[in-house]
Amino acid sequence: MSASPYKQLEQEFKRVHAFRGAIALLRWDAAVMMPRGSSDVRGEQLAALETEHHALLTAPRITRLLERAQASAQGLTDWQVANLREMRRQRDHAIATPASLVSRMARATARAESHWLAARQQGKFELFAPHLEEVVSLVRDKAALLGQALNLSPYDALIDEFSPGISSADIDAVFKTISRRLPSLIREVITLQDPHPPLPVTGKFSPSRQRALALEIMKAMGFPFDRGRLDESEHPSTLGVPGDIRVTTRFDSVDPFSGLLGALHETGHAMYDLGLPGEWRDQPVGRDRGMVVQESQSLFLEMLVCRSHAFAGYLVPLLQRHFGATGPEWDVDNVYALLTRVRRGQIRVDADELTYPLHILLRYELEKRLLSGDLAVRDLPAAWNEGMEQRFGARPASDAEGCLQDIHWAVGAFGYFPSYALGAVIAVQLFDALRAQVHDLDQQVARGDFAGIFGWLRARVHAQGSRLSVQELLQEATGKPLSAVPFVRYLEAKYLEGAASSAAA
Amino acid sequence: MSASPYKQLEQEFKRVHAFRGAIALLRWDAAVMMPRGSSDVRGEQLAALETEHHALLTAPRITRLLERAQASAQGLTDWQVANLREMRRQRDHAIATPASLVSRMARATARAESHWLAARQQGKFELFAPHLEEVVSLVRDKAALLGQALNLSPYDALIDEFSPGISSADIDAVFKTISRRLPSLIREVITLQDPHPPLPVTGKFSPSRQRALALEIMKAMGFPFDRGRLDESEHPSTLGVPGDIRVTTRFDSVDPFSGLLGALHETGHAMYDLGLPGEWRDQPVGRDRGMVVQESQSLFLEMLVCRSHAFAGYLVPLLQRHFGATGPEWDVDNVYALLTRVRRGQIRVDADELTYPLHILLRYELEKRLLSGDLAVRDLPAAWNEGMEQRFGARPASDAEGCLQDIHWAVGAFGYFPSYALGAVIAVQLFDALRAQVHDLDQQVARGDFAGIFGWLRARVHAQGSRLSVQELLQEATGKPLSAVPFVRYLEAKYLEGAASSAAA
Repeated sequence: MSASPYKQLEQEFKRVHAFRGAIALLRWDAAVMMPRGSSDVRGEQLAALETEHHALLTAPRITRLLERAQASAQGLTDWQVANLREMRRQRDHAIATPASLVSRMARATARAESHWLAARQQGKFELFAPHLEEVVSLVRDKAALLGQALNLSPYDALIDEFSPGISSADIDAVFKTISRRLPSLIREVITLQDPHPPLPVTGKFSPSRQRALALEIMKAMGFPFDRGRLDESEHPSTLGVPGDIRVTTRFDSVDPFSGLLGALHETGHAMYDLGLPGEWRDQPVGRDRGMVVQESQSLFLEMLVCRSHAFAGYLVPLLQRHFGATGPEWDVDNVYALLTRVRRGQIRVDADELTYPLHILLRYELEKRLLSGDLAVRDLPAAWNEGMEQRFGARPASDAEGCLQDIHWAVGAFGYFPSYALGAVIAVQLFDALRAQVHDLDQQVARGDFAGIFGWLRARVHAQGSRLSVQELLQEATGKPLSAVPFVRYLEAKYLEGAASSAAA
Repeated sequence: MSASPYKQLEQEFKRVHAFRGAIALLRWDAAVMMPRGSSDVRGEQLAALETEHHALLTAPRITRLLERAQASAQGLTDWQVANLREMRRQRDHAIATPASLVSRMARATARAESHWLAARQQGKFELFAPHLEEVVSLVRDKAALLGQALNLSPYDALIDEFSPGISSADIDAVFKTISRRLPSLIREVITLQDPHPPLPVTGKFSPSRQRALALEIMKAMGFPFDRGRLDESEHPSTLGVPGDIRVTTRFDSVDPFSGLLGALHETGHAMYDLGLPGEWRDQPVGRDRGMVVQESQSLFLEMLVCRSHAFAGYLVPLLQRHFGATGPEWDVDNVYALLTRVRRGQIRVDADELTYPLHILLRYELEKRLLSGDLAVRDLPAAWNEGMEQRFGARPASDAEGCLQDIHWAVGAFGYFPSYALGAVIAVQLFDALRAQVHDLDQQVARGDFAGIFGWLRARVHAQGSRLSVQELLQEATGKPLSAVPFVRYLEAKYLEGAASSAAA
């Protein structure tokens, strides 16, 4: 007896999954290991693999099997039904984009990524501009085709690729709530913090010691180093597949926190990937539920867990041991003050919790304008700098600290940035729910015990894979719909009340 | 007007080339970067890519295009005709091996490689044995099928994959000449050398300094680091594709020569790959002419160039600078004596020029017996140890220094080892021809000028790609047919006369 249509589909998607894993490895290598001159070669390899990945999904056989499996779906479990839905989703997205566009995009983004690196290092936007122009033009074509097929606006179609079920209406609602309160809150917090600035930490912190510290904390969090790595790259990232997770960060030798928090942000992603349902590992339903949920996990760890007073209590002895750090600047209260210092900085990945969403808002606005044609690529640096001036009262010293700081647009990831803002909002909703159930959370974190946190996240978020929509997942985990109100409240409580009490102490 | 059948084939093989490059990168990563627990994931990825690579080559479209291109071949250039021939060759090999065997082999070798690593580290052959058994059984099937299709004996069919046009008759002839003289020559040389042993070098040589030294020499040789890397792995190797070459070696902190010579051996491979004809980069005729010629290039550099008195003269000041080395043991004559010391050691990659071919002979005999079924995998360690005892008068201290030392069988590379012996023989034939034309070769090497050597090799070997057969290539480059006689004469001159004169000095 031959396998059922559903079982045959599982076999097909197992191959799709293997191709995705190979593509992810080639991308990781390009970011971390590849010699700079080899991007043309890598571009051809990625184009060939992306094209084949696309061909696998768009093969008539898949569509035939989907129809037959659908017709005999009554015997399937909930997970299998959800898997079928996710298979269809992948097929629909693939069919909407012609193969020629996929391979052109693979080549263009490989070129753009390597020129972005060079432009960033030399602080020369003009090295990157023509390549970004090519990427923008291809993304525009893709957005139009996807939008038509999915009956969405072009930009919403791009969002749907990264975060299924999320629309720009959801994003606008979140930004509306945030924008109403954040600018004034930032002013108030800075006014509160400025009279009592934390002592700065000084000295040199060698990358190898920073790495050892990051490894120790990642181990304490349960990161399995027989199934993953930590490396350095220009841009912190998490690549690979659940059985082979590659985390990267970048270390700054005068700042012991930036590289660590980058690594922990990525560890949040990695723990999500590692907690995905093992038995569905190579199936669509076993994948993460898109970038909004991904960023909720990374920001949960970086912002809510690791920028807490309890975490500072756990961290200080480690800093002393790894860096031989002594003196009042290494006091727990002072380290906490450093981790929660609010400043209108230029770099997103180094931003504090309060200014972070404003960094995202700028990118959200600019990428929509780039795609609509309202903003030309050559005018991007000026628009960026103006936006920063407006929101933060200062312009970046160079494009490297301005519009060249992020990799996303180079690799064609338009529609991705909003995930960070929605992720931050969801992270707080999850955190509130966790706190309501686990009463000694601070004590656990202070002693470096993260099992309770990850156990909770694993059951409610990670192990769900793509079974539920983002909204359903949130509802089941927290009992509440998506809302930015708890996010604003959390920030007020942490930064106004916390700061007031710490100032009074 | 649509493209000619030949031009359409070029497009198809460009994709084949991209897949080969992606596969090579996944293999490099598995050897150098991959977390140990991820070999199952990598095995699935390699299986998917190998299967697709195989499907591309065996597609009916390729055979149709090959027939049509053949019928209209009169307008093609010599290179294009050779390219067609190499396309057919790849297709013939692929068609002889069923897809199911390809994917089973990919999975089995990924598993075997990771268990080989573990077995080697723990010195436990039994961890590796069941996986090697699986690989041997699959290779046996493949050899039978390939042999039938190509009208060759099973073992000759495997050789033909690595070294087109070479047969076991060629190999036997070479080994006959070598075996007649080498054992007695080794005895004579050891008798000559033993009364005047070189001073040993002592101390610790940090891997990072050894790496810096290797990088400096590779740079002097013209290795382009914007198109390649040097890393460390359990087994020295050269992977990647001509535009992105990955050299690996392993450093021993008490021996400053072993890791360096490993890196230079691999640099010989890399320079070949880098010198392949650029305009044929992504076509079959642009590939190297198989492993016999590959090993002729690596052994040329390692043995003939770098184990010379002239090279010792270049190397000594570098050793002083990188390791702060001083004292009589760092004298040029002493370093040369160390580089040419003949010893019956256990490790192939550390072997001197004289004992090297005997290491190969052992492997050649054992792999034929493994494939024929005459030797069971479980009996391999005993047979290995006995063979070493017989030839070298000593058994390895453990299987890690015995039958687990090489990666080849784990990855299914049966029929590969003879390439080293034939490569060594060809290297000497090329070296004799080069010396006849370049009279100040020693002076060039002594001042670290390798441009003359690589210029000559590039023109006569590298830039030929796969245009000629091994025998034609050798005839055109040297005017002589394949023969082991010059190899034996070279060893006698270098080790008997050189040793005598050095002992007299």
